[in-house]
Amino acid sequence: MADYTPPKVWTWDKENGGQFASINRPTAGAREEKPLPSGDHPLQLYSLATPNGQKVTIMLEELLAAGHDAEYNAWKISISDGDQFGSGFVDINPNSKIPALLDRSPSGGGDPIRIFESGNILLYLAEKYGAFLPTDLAGRTETLNWLFWQMGAGPYLGGGFGHFYNYAPDKIEYAIDRFSMEVKRHYDLLDQQLADRPFIAGDSYTIADMAIWPWYGNLALGRAYGDANIFLDIASYKNVMRWTEEIDARQAVQRGRIVNKSWGDVQLAERHSAADVNAALARTA
Amino acid sequence: MADYTPPKVWTWDKENGGQFASINRPTAGAREEKPLPSGDHPLQLYSLATPNGQKVTIMLEELLAAGHDAEYNAWKISISDGDQFGSGFVDINPNSKIPALLDRSPSGGGDPIRIFESGNILLYLAEKYGAFLPTDLAGRTETLNWLFWQMGAGPYLGGGFGHFYNYAPDKIEYAIDRFSMEVKRHYDLLDQQLADRPFIAGDSYTIADMAIWPWYGNLALGRAYGDANIFLDIASYKNVMRWTEEIDARQAVQRGRIVNKSWGDVQLAERHSAADVNAALARTA
Repeated sequence: MADYTPPKVWTWDKENGGQFASINRPTAGAREEKPLPSGDHPLQLYSLATPNGQKVTIMLEELLAAGHDAEYNAWKISISDGDQFGSGFVDINPNSKIPALLDRSPSGGGDPIRIFESGNILLYLAEKYGAFLPTDLAGRTETLNWLFWQMGAGPYLGGGFGHFYNYAPDKIEYAIDRFSMEVKRHYDLLDQQLADRPFIAGDSYTIADMAIWPWYGNLALGRAYGDANIFLDIASYKNVMRWTEEIDARQAVQRGRIVNKSWGDVQLAERHSAADVNAALARTA
Repeated sequence: MADYTPPKVWTWDKENGGQFASINRPTAGAREEKPLPSGDHPLQLYSLATPNGQKVTIMLEELLAAGHDAEYNAWKISISDGDQFGSGFVDINPNSKIPALLDRSPSGGGDPIRIFESGNILLYLAEKYGAFLPTDLAGRTETLNWLFWQMGAGPYLGGGFGHFYNYAPDKIEYAIDRFSMEVKRHYDLLDQQLADRPFIAGDSYTIADMAIWPWYGNLALGRAYGDANIFLDIASYKNVMRWTEEIDARQAVQRGRIVNKSWGDVQLAERHSAADVNAALARTA
């Protein structure tokens, strides 16, 4: 590999793409005509129970648990089947990534609004319902500091560390070292932040926690990338572990993290009512 | 490299870090006591003229050009000298990345507010001044869709493609292919988005353009990562090129992109008044 010299102009080699070689392409846009299903609720979520998907379903379950009228239909987008390249999905998120949300009843009325990027969906819902985001400017800003931090950090954890540690066809030492160092820096940062406050942005549980927990909490609990929690010695970050376990114990988190999940012990491909979640949890209780 | 087997628990090898090996560590926090300088204006920016830094200085210059009272002191944070690990900087951004902003005169009064993450600073300033962000929910949401998109895409362009194409000590074909494919997908996505609208989020120039242009526009103009614009054949994305050149011609962009710049033809390490920018531009005009 050290002998490789990049050409003057890059060309696409379909064979060299790792586990997702058959899905990823250097082009954007719809690959087939495929309308999306739609349910009865104002909020239509098209997603999958990856960490980015869980951010939104956890938020929706937290909103419902707090008494907000945030009923939603959650439809599974199978990324390994390429559902994200169907025309209906691309209309809602031209970037072809889950999660994507359609709000058919936006505040103030008007046409349905599409919302994409998981952090942005959290912000949209927080502002729509006035929840999980402090309303004073200082508290709001500190919460958004960490919400945006996760948006920029996540690709180093998922597309960097996770890919090269877990998915890439060869184990490339340089890349694994690079992203392991960065992810451990993230954990150390979070550990310092959580040393003297219960939640990421202060005293209250916010969308910053909901953005960060699905990535850093799930990995800490051994739910991502094989033995990555051991490889990165996550147990040594005591404050992160305390925060991880507290959030993991929340009922809304236990509900939200199984929505649009079609692997593992508890599965719930689609969610159309609270009863769907109850039934899925009961099947393995 | 194909023979490498990761250990059970990762350990830090200081030698294996590429060009920035001496700077990056797997830990967070201040490394030395070092207060930050402070000027007369309410807005204190601590930054560097990288694409993430340029987002904010372009926004500030656009605000000033539009008549807003957005005067600012911009202080250079030399990341190669480790300024981002000084205690003063870490107090404003514990993540030790530029740009970081301190607003000593927040709307509604109260203590100074710290703002970090470039996309978040754009949002904060847009809301503070009521500018470059549509106020109707649909327009606001679409703008934030693309603002957040850039936050998640940027690491693939900078920390992924830019690192492995330009900075890594060896040219690793798999990594270059992976990130080249993804970045070309981004360009194709933007090209489609710009095919039937003048700006990223519609008819008006917004913080979404200001977030995306410093990365995708500068690279398109050959200002990043050597011959990366040729390698990725950016000239083939006609709509991106049209948008790139239009924005590059804006006076506020020409001003903003040199602030905190200490390399190349036009340099301006610190900015404390409009006259500083005028003088820097005049030196090479």
